[in-house]
Amino acid sequence: MSNETGSDKFTAINEIARRRGFFWQSYEIYGGVGGFVTYGPLGAKLKQNIERKIRELFVNKLGILEIESSVIAPRKVFEASGHVNHFKEPMIECSKCNKRFRADHLLQEYTKISATETEKMSLEEIKQAIEKNAITCPECGGIFNPPKQFLTMFETTIGPYSAATGYGRPEAAQGIFVEFSRLYKMAREKLPFGVIQIGHALRNEISPRQGLMRLREFTIADLEFFFDPEMPCCHLLKDVESETLTLVLSEKRAKGSEEAISVTVKEALEQKIVSSEWQVFFMAIAKKLLTEIGVPPENQRFIEKLPWEKAHYATQCFDQEVYVDRWGWVEVSGHAYRTDYDLASHMKASGADLCVYKEYETPVEQKQVVLKPVMAKMGPAFKAEATKVADLLLKASAEEVATSLEKNGYYMVENYRILPNHVDFSCQETVVRGKRFIPHVVEPSFGSDRLVYVTLEYAYHVKDDRVLMSFPRTIAPTQIGVYPLVSKDGLVEKAEEMHKLLVNEGFTAEFDETGSIGRRYARADEAGVPLGITIDYDTMSDGTVTIRNRDSWQQVRSPIKDLPELLQKYFKGKIHFEDLGTLLQVK
Amino acid sequence: MSNETGSDKFTAINEIARRRGFFWQSYEIYGGVGGFVTYGPLGAKLKQNIERKIRELFVNKLGILEIESSVIAPRKVFEASGHVNHFKEPMIECSKCNKRFRADHLLQEYTKISATETEKMSLEEIKQAIEKNAITCPECGGIFNPPKQFLTMFETTIGPYSAATGYGRPEAAQGIFVEFSRLYKMAREKLPFGVIQIGHALRNEISPRQGLMRLREFTIADLEFFFDPEMPCCHLLKDVESETLTLVLSEKRAKGSEEAISVTVKEALEQKIVSSEWQVFFMAIAKKLLTEIGVPPENQRFIEKLPWEKAHYATQCFDQEVYVDRWGWVEVSGHAYRTDYDLASHMKASGADLCVYKEYETPVEQKQVVLKPVMAKMGPAFKAEATKVADLLLKASAEEVATSLEKNGYYMVENYRILPNHVDFSCQETVVRGKRFIPHVVEPSFGSDRLVYVTLEYAYHVKDDRVLMSFPRTIAPTQIGVYPLVSKDGLVEKAEEMHKLLVNEGFTAEFDETGSIGRRYARADEAGVPLGITIDYDTMSDGTVTIRNRDSWQQVRSPIKDLPELLQKYFKGKIHFEDLGTLLQVK
Repeated sequence: MSNETGSDKFTAINEIARRRGFFWQSYEIYGGVGGFVTYGPLGAKLKQNIERKIRELFVNKLGILEIESSVIAPRKVFEASGHVNHFKEPMIECSKCNKRFRADHLLQEYTKISATETEKMSLEEIKQAIEKNAITCPECGGIFNPPKQFLTMFETTIGPYSAATGYGRPEAAQGIFVEFSRLYKMAREKLPFGVIQIGHALRNEISPRQGLMRLREFTIADLEFFFDPEMPCCHLLKDVESETLTLVLSEKRAKGSEEAISVTVKEALEQKIVSSEWQVFFMAIAKKLLTEIGVPPENQRFIEKLPWEKAHYATQCFDQEVYVDRWGWVEVSGHAYRTDYDLASHMKASGADLCVYKEYETPVEQKQVVLKPVMAKMGPAFKAEATKVADLLLKASAEEVATSLEKNGYYMVENYRILPNHVDFSCQETVVRGKRFIPHVVEPSFGSDRLVYVTLEYAYHVKDDRVLMSFPRTIAPTQIGVYPLVSKDGLVEKAEEMHKLLVNEGFTAEFDETGSIGRRYARADEAGVPLGITIDYDTMSDGTVTIRNRDSWQQVRSPIKDLPELLQKYFKGKIHFEDLGTLLQVK
Repeated sequence: MSNETGSDKFTAINEIARRRGFFWQSYEIYGGVGGFVTYGPLGAKLKQNIERKIRELFVNKLGILEIESSVIAPRKVFEASGHVNHFKEPMIECSKCNKRFRADHLLQEYTKISATETEKMSLEEIKQAIEKNAITCPECGGIFNPPKQFLTMFETTIGPYSAATGYGRPEAAQGIFVEFSRLYKMAREKLPFGVIQIGHALRNEISPRQGLMRLREFTIADLEFFFDPEMPCCHLLKDVESETLTLVLSEKRAKGSEEAISVTVKEALEQKIVSSEWQVFFMAIAKKLLTEIGVPPENQRFIEKLPWEKAHYATQCFDQEVYVDRWGWVEVSGHAYRTDYDLASHMKASGADLCVYKEYETPVEQKQVVLKPVMAKMGPAFKAEATKVADLLLKASAEEVATSLEKNGYYMVENYRILPNHVDFSCQETVVRGKRFIPHVVEPSFGSDRLVYVTLEYAYHVKDDRVLMSFPRTIAPTQIGVYPLVSKDGLVEKAEEMHKLLVNEGFTAEFDETGSIGRRYARADEAGVPLGITIDYDTMSDGTVTIRNRDSWQQVRSPIKDLPELLQKYFKGKIHFEDLGTLLQVK
């Protein structure tokens, strides 16, 4: 790992990203605004392809439902979800120049206090640590004011009334929870089922840095998987149970160690390392996703979050991390067991019933204590208020009343003292056919932009002093380059025809006739184009073309007429490069 | 056209949309928030497929570059673009209940004043019209306060400083204009080129209604096409020149008529009805798009905007309209000639140079008048200030000085009076090799949500009292349903196998085993699934299946092994339903 800014992969990738148009900081002509990026043509396509992979794995193959809801939501939603109270970061302001900073980041930078430590510090503890370490403003050296909590949601007003506060969503999950009732109907009222949403989200970071890693506006893929906590079995587990996961457990982490263990999915469950079958199932799929976009398994791990690191809604939580050159291990996805936290909160806040009903396989007979007010005794005791007291009593739990009478000799309902002779108890038998409950939720959540970054970093290779972006062929932004060897004798027209054929077949193809063929190959390698098709004089006579491999620089010769089918198979990963034609000896 | 709410297609579609999960108003459990919708699984997929069609037509086939930028932008961007000044609507508030309304909408509803008329009214004129027509609050009957302008952008703060105002973008176009320099490089510094962005946008409507037609958060597809105004020819025109367009011209509209003419693209240019070749080219492509998503050409037209209806940046502007049951003609795309308005504005506001350079084919010789102060005369005339005056003079335009001296006998530079004998003129010849200029822009802009709505309305059919959503097969949210005829004898397993095969081939397929086969067909027809594959007892013995057509209810019998290839061709529109197998006689 290189710590020197200016010479690491992060720098190289940001340079190539700006130059070739993968991404860059937005609004440069206005001085740039931290935390916002613009994806250029190559980056936008790469990002779309990664998101298509997420859809393939979750929506197409697993039948997860996809929805699209809005970025702006009314205040009530985020009050209920707990974000208005919890989605805050400690901010500190210089008393001299008034510049503001993330207090915890300053501590991490200027002391030996780790992120794990700062995360559990109170404002008072942060204040003391700042003072103790004599940290002053990095801009002007001024003394800091005491830290405050800063709400990191973007706030706005919906419509013409200033009281109608809205926020930009910091996660796509709430757009799913608030629509649970409808979505449950669309899943034909059967558990388990999952809903995914991939869309923009907003976090008003105090001082964002680190390019794609920490953005104010980003794309999130939140998958909420709803299941019956009494039936937590994952019926798809057999597909992944022998998959190996690298885990760093909280037990070790609490002791300051980052030592990892390698266990299969099956072992992780047997040893109760991961508490939910669905959670570990999605962790295995997440590993598959990262591997397919180019991150080798040995550079992936899952770390279990410590109690104070977890989001306010989570019980057990694992972060999927990928090793990157500049920062070491960074989070690319989170895997939280959210229990019924969100649905229960929205149910309480909205008054809507978000329970589901399940019928027992065999109805259960239940004995129930039933209470009856004895009006003959209550009348004289409570006079004109007797009926009212009786009504209140009927609303109370019969069991509670009985217990209190037995234990204390009386039961208080509001200010009325109920005595044993005021009530009669009887026992009723009822047949209960099912029950209502709130489903539990396991959530895998991916950050698209970070996936783009790790894809770029793992695609980045240098060969003979030239940069190759070796994107896996299934996600390469441009699939095929088409090049006339020279710009005369009809080769350009033939190449244009070839290009049009490929485009009509649905391939992402670019046509390039500028500069020497070597320079065109080099440009394409840098843009990560897996295959180059060159039209030469032989093409004109025998209808064959040369196909060049971006990574090996090998070439095969192939008849044009076979290409559409062969290329379809190649980009679906069904055949190898050598299967595209006859291998040529490259001089 | 039906005007009765409750019995028209709009009502029917909103009902089916909510029930089957195409879309519904968001945040229902919190009472709903106007102007926000959630797309359920079917709607999200339909919307994606429509957006994929836009990408196919523009990005894949025409080579338009696609980018993705952020929804939030700093205030400077929208100051420069003119939105902070112009993006406003007249708002009126009831003096009694304080409820707020769009003043122009109230006038349209309660008087005979048309939208065309209200659009050009000043606040004072609106006030008078409200008073004259005695319009009072529709909620409480109260008197209205005078109307005000309401800025219909969502406002927020970026980062921890309250002065850093940001807005939610009301269009995706500005995200392209502000990044012009980089994008021009990515287009290899050649004109013409186009850039498209498809993403969420925000307009803080005062009182949104009309479902998908007027949203506060919506998806826009803005395409900015940059070209040299001195070379305005569209090299792709031949592909569309015989395409017929239905146009309602502003000349007619100004006279209150909506009479349409039908002209070919070629005629529209020859008769100078549309001023830009690229503009009319994109209008023809827009017609193709609408036709492909299911709107017949006779239900499409383009209306030319009247001067006061046009956006602040546009010279000529056409709206593409589609006829819908509830409201008649509604806009689905806009085609504006934005000239160099946006780039020039950002250039001025940011100080960045957004010009491009073009080399002349043959360098131009230019004669230039050069001015030289005659110090021997200026010294005595201006004394100590002579050098200063000479410097000022050198900064002035030589031609202006010459003209003024000739015409008036003197030239004023600041307060100094320059006489003919103070200066000498000479003529210099220079060779100019090229020039710098700001490209012009033609913009087609589509509203995704409205495209979804018109797709739904034109797909809606009733057959034998049942609803069929006849989506074109290229955009149907679910492509294939797979049904075991009965739930025993291994048919379910066989059907699951079939389903898995289709999913792995990349089809969107659903598996349904609940209820009678007739009910399953009906459910699938309503969800717009073009093909249903039924697994029956014959399948188990001979490996063939029945394929059912959603629209004709015809059935063919086909061997499973041929299906992947046949279905690929069918969904690409290369073969007909009858080509999928042997036609069966349906009882």
